[in-house]
Formats: sequence, structure tokens, C-alpha cells
Amino acid sequence: MHPFTKNYADSVSAWGEEKLLAAIRRWLGTASPRSPFGIGDDCAVLPATRGRQLITVDPVIYGRHFNDAVPPRAVGAKLLKRNLSDLAAMGGRPTAAVLALTLDARVSRKWLEQFYRGLAASARRYRVPIVGGDLAQADGIVAASLTLLGQAAGPRVVTRTGSRVGDWIYVTGTLGGSLRSRHHYQFTPRLAEGAWLARQAGVHAMMDVSDGLAKDLHALTPRGAVPGLDPTTLPCRPGSTVAAALSDGEDYELVFALGAGRDRRAFERAWRRVFPRTRLSCLGRFVRTNALPAGSLNLDDYRGYEHLR
Amino acid sequence: MHPFTKNYADSVSAWGEEKLLAAIRRWLGTASPRSPFGIGDDCAVLPATRGRQLITVDPVIYGRHFNDAVPPRAVGAKLLKRNLSDLAAMGGRPTAAVLALTLDARVSRKWLEQFYRGLAASARRYRVPIVGGDLAQADGIVAASLTLLGQAAGPRVVTRTGSRVGDWIYVTGTLGGSLRSRHHYQFTPRLAEGAWLARQAGVHAMMDVSDGLAKDLHALTPRGAVPGLDPTTLPCRPGSTVAAALSDGEDYELVFALGAGRDRRAFERAWRRVFPRTRLSCLGRFVRTNALPAGSLNLDDYRGYEHLR
Repeated sequence: MHPFTKNYADSVSAWGEEKLLAAIRRWLGTASPRSPFGIGDDCAVLPATRGRQLITVDPVIYGRHFNDAVPPRAVGAKLLKRNLSDLAAMGGRPTAAVLALTLDARVSRKWLEQFYRGLAASARRYRVPIVGGDLAQADGIVAASLTLLGQAAGPRVVTRTGSRVGDWIYVTGTLGGSLRSRHHYQFTPRLAEGAWLARQAGVHAMMDVSDGLAKDLHALTPRGAVPGLDPTTLPCRPGSTVAAALSDGEDYELVFALGAGRDRRAFERAWRRVFPRTRLSCLGRFVRTNALPAGSLNLDDYRGYEHLR
Repeated sequence: MHPFTKNYADSVSAWGEEKLLAAIRRWLGTASPRSPFGIGDDCAVLPATRGRQLITVDPVIYGRHFNDAVPPRAVGAKLLKRNLSDLAAMGGRPTAAVLALTLDARVSRKWLEQFYRGLAASARRYRVPIVGGDLAQADGIVAASLTLLGQAAGPRVVTRTGSRVGDWIYVTGTLGGSLRSRHHYQFTPRLAEGAWLARQAGVHAMMDVSDGLAKDLHALTPRGAVPGLDPTTLPCRPGSTVAAALSDGEDYELVFALGAGRDRRAFERAWRRVFPRTRLSCLGRFVRTNALPAGSLNLDDYRGYEHLR
């Protein structure tokens, strides 16, 4: 669905701000509590947190993260799920979100309603109250930026740093072809998996795969080491090549490092018991720079998604 | 300064993502702690809060909130200060912020550096760590959205609701002509004033004036009442008309309701003692709809800033 309308009467600007804000509240429904705990005041008020908090921000922009082929409900859901994936990667669970929307005056109300209804449905499903927002106008733009707050689901958060030479490299699900397969908006953020992994002491570091494994894995790699990846273990999405699995991006899977001293078989058995439907693949291990096993993937041959190219 | 460059070598895209992110860290400097408490992981980690939290989000968009006449350092500062003004209006103080930036690939690095340096200087001044961010590309756009977290500076937060018929209506500073006078980016958010007002039990409700008093005051007005404003008391900025003071917007002043039973003279004396340099004006009081005193301003004759017009 195309977000713009040529018919002024169907546009957001025909309604004006007040009517539009009232409609947004209706579309969000129970996903958005009233002020002071939600939309309608200078700030939203949130209850005190127990323990540390997590915060992340990610947008969806027309022409970048979605196009006319993506249903507007799915765009709203994708906006929330991209942020949930970041939270999952730290072992977090969500607590609240705020939304900043930037719209051309010619955006169609029908498109916007579906966007909000999709966001609201996803917010209810994942129990994330949308507590605040801002609405701004700019020519030629349909962009939404969501800031997500969360907290650790268990006793610790897992960061990208902490892996060591010898650690095993694991990835959830399958990789590649996210655009063609519609995975880029149909994915389910790995919240339960991330929370479980954060409770396993053997998991040294974790992140989500959003710009392609070849690019993202650098951030997980300990100093003086390289990822020794066995190409035959790469979980390619059906129809995807190794190159696509390494470069396409928008996989929203978790990649993590498991301590070399851990019992891999016991770990994998426990995983299959808890997540029988989520594939888990061991891709290899971090090895010293000069000790890459023969037949390993050379990640320098692949590029991930480069922003601002 | 114009944000776009015609010279590819001076553009953000000539640098690419990695170099740009490194530069952003350098420009933010001490205003941005390293991960996990700042930029560089899937989420930023924040310490536990004491008591309730406040959250707000506001953008600056090229062509809307700034143009070539506004120095890029001032654009960065304005972005933070607009959000601080929302926090001030609840009696809050800031704790952390995250930034979502959307840029055309042709944005000049010089412009962006000044933007970040202005944001960083303002963040240091108001002690707001910039803990996270996102960078996205979109054609023809220079837009930044900041989400600000805070907490009550004292024992309570003040909302927009709570004023009663008979309450006195006060406003800080002067109103109108914010564009011409450059006040729209040179203002100082009323954080100290908001925190002090929130500690006065007589202050029933408060908000900041951002879209013009004529529009914003509706949100502060109790049901069944209207604001009875004496036009001679309106603190017009030098060179501003009454109409400008009511309609221009971007004043970033505080408007609040003081209980009818309070000793106004004692309140105003206390104010002058604490804030000798911040003007405070009593504009009138909330009266029943059918009891508007003769000579009062008819706010229906004025419009504030209408978004998505």
C-alpha cells in the first residue's frame, strides 16, 4: 500500500492535528495508557524500575525499511519488533516505548490507521505500553522512530564484549534472503531465547544479526582473534546462498559466544528441550588471527549492509 | 549554514558508516559514555532509578525547526533544550538521552560536526549523558529525534491536569516573536523554575508553552471554565504584538495554575527572591464559561501553531 494519497480529503492534513491525535489514541487503544502514565502531557510518567534499565532506538523509514509492498500493519509491527530484537540481544524484556513520527501532510489516513493498528497489536502481544509520542511534519517523508525501554529479564544483561579465543560461535534460526522471503517484517524477535541465553553462565557475549553476519560478527570477536566459520554449518534460509546468508542483513537472529570449556552437547540438549522449534547452529569458534583452519570462510570477502553508503 | 554539500568529498557518505560513527563518538566526547552505559551495544544500560521516571521525545527537522540561518551548533543545542523544556514543565530533571538521526548522504560533515558539538556542549552543561543512538539514511532529510529520560527533581511531578476554577494563571518570561528574535534556539529551558514550582503545593498544574499560549492554555483549563486573561498583563517580547505573544509558539516558557486560596503576594515575593532574573506574570484566572470578565482576551480569535496544517 502506498502511504501517500492524491486525494486531499483522505490525507492527514485534511483532518488537522487535533482530530488526528484523537484518532491515534483510538487506533492505539489499550496499547497506550492515558496520561500521566501515557500520551497527553509534556512527559509520560513511568513507575520506578527494579535494577538496571535498557534503552534502544531504531526507526522505520519509507524507501529504506519498507516500501509499498509491505502492508502498513506490518510496518508498525516491524518498528516495534526491530527494537525488541535489540533488547533480546541483551537478555532483556520490554517495559515501555515512545514513538516519534514524521509525516508528509499528504500521507493517507488509511495508511496511517493500519500502521498504528499494527503497532498497537504488536505492542499488546509483547506487553509494551506506548507511553508517549511526537508528531511532526516534513515534506516527502514517512518515518517513525521508536525508543524502547526495558530491563534485564534475569539476573544479568549480556553485552557484545566478553567472548574469548576458543569460544564457540552459535546463531539462532536461518540467515539470508530476508527481503525476498518477507522475513524482514515477518520475523519474531528472539525475546525468550535471549532471556534464556542470558541465564546461561557459559554465554560470554551476544548481539542480534541486523546488518549481516559478516559485518556484525566483528563486534563479537575478541581482540587478536578471528571467527573460524565452517561454511557447511551456515544455516542458510531456503533459497539463500552463503553470500546472502552473510551479507543480506535484517535477519534479527541472535549470535552468541559459548565458553570453550562448556559441555556443548549438554547445552544443545537443553536448548532443544526449551526451544524445540528454534534452530540453533554452531558455526565454529574464535581462533587466533594466524590460526584460521583450512576451509574456513574468509569474512573479508563479504560485506554486510553498509549504512550511508 | 546549509546542511548539504555539493562536494562529494565533504559529505558523510564519502566517509561511510564506520568512520562516521568514530567521528560522532569523538564529537560527543565526554557527553557520551562508552558501552554498556553508552553507545556501542544493542542497547545502552542505565542505572536503576529512584522513584518514578519521566520520558519525552521531540525532534528537530530541517525546514521545520531550523533552516540555514540557524548555526548547526545551535540546532544540536535546541534539540536537547526543547526536550528539557518538557521535563521542566513536569518539575523534572534529566538523567539520560538517546538520539535517532536521519540523514541524506549529501549532508556535509562540517555541518554534522557542528551539530554534534553543539549537542555535546549542551549535554555537558545540563548533565545529560547521550547513551545511545541510531543513524539512518533517507533522501532529502536532515532530522534528529531525541528521547529524554528524567525523574522528579523533588517529591512530586506536576501534570497539566489539576487546575480549578478560580486558580491564578501565571507565565514565566516573555512571549511572541521567537523566530525573529532567535529565541526559538537561544532560550534557556526553565529547569530550575519548574523544579521549584513543583515543590510549591499551591501549583496545581503546569505545562510549557511551545505552540503558542492561545492553543496550549486549553490543556491547562479545567472543565466548565475558560481562561480570563487580562490583555494588559501579557508579557510580550519587545517588538511583539498581543497576537504574536498568543500565537507564535516556540516560547519554551512555563504556564501554571496557582490555587485561588494562596497568598499571591507571598508567592511572588518568594519567586523574586529565588529567580530575580526570571520575569513572572499573572495573566488572570480560570473563570466559569459564562463569567468571563469584560475586557478579557477572547482566545478563540487567536490560533497557536497547528501541526500538519
